[in-house]
Amino acid sequence: MNIITSLNKAFDSRVRLGIMSMLMVNESVDFATIKKELDLTDGNLSTHLLALEKEKYIGVKKQFINKKPNTSYTVTKSGEKAFKAHITALEEIIKKSFE
Amino acid sequence: MNIITSLNKAFDSRVRLGIMSMLMVNESVDFATIKKELDLTDGNLSTHLLALEKEKYIGVKKQFINKKPNTSYTVTKSGEKAFKAHITALEEIIKKSFE
Repeated sequence: MNIITSLNKAFDSRVRLGIMSMLMVNESVDFATIKKELDLTDGNLSTHLLALEKEKYIGVKKQFINKKPNTSYTVTKSGEKAFKAHITALEEIIKKSFE
Repeated sequence: MNIITSLNKAFDSRVRLGIMSMLMVNESVDFATIKKELDLTDGNLSTHLLALEKEKYIGVKKQFINKKPNTSYTVTKSGEKAFKAHITALEEIIKKSFE
């Protein structure tokens, strides 16, 4: 066990940190909102959402709102747990970097 | 400007966070020590060191110690500045995630 193995590779990317950060404080967030907030292309955002979905860190809900398709995302229990562990590890690294 | 553009893509990887963290608190660290501390392969470590070197965030010194080649690394002034900015941005994201 060293300072980096406690970091979760699934959260290495700053895009994923941004997504998780948004989902941690919102019940659910739709695709368009994440895209706008993080200023990403559809493709880039989709790739990272899919990766987080595959890890079962986020859940996806597809529905129609006013007859328009709407895809929204929520953080799962295990996603919340994993992200909190990652943040704790990050804080540890930050602390060590300025000892 | 959003929560992720203030994060530095060069530090996305946890390996690079680990390297920078070590260099922030040590005058210089040699290849073997980083490799051992972070439990990495030569190839993986070399790739990340080279990336940080290209950004001019770290400097490299090659010398002979007891006739054996020794390569050591130091953080540059701009590396220190960039890493501190990255940490500040990370702390911001962490704060936002638990509001």
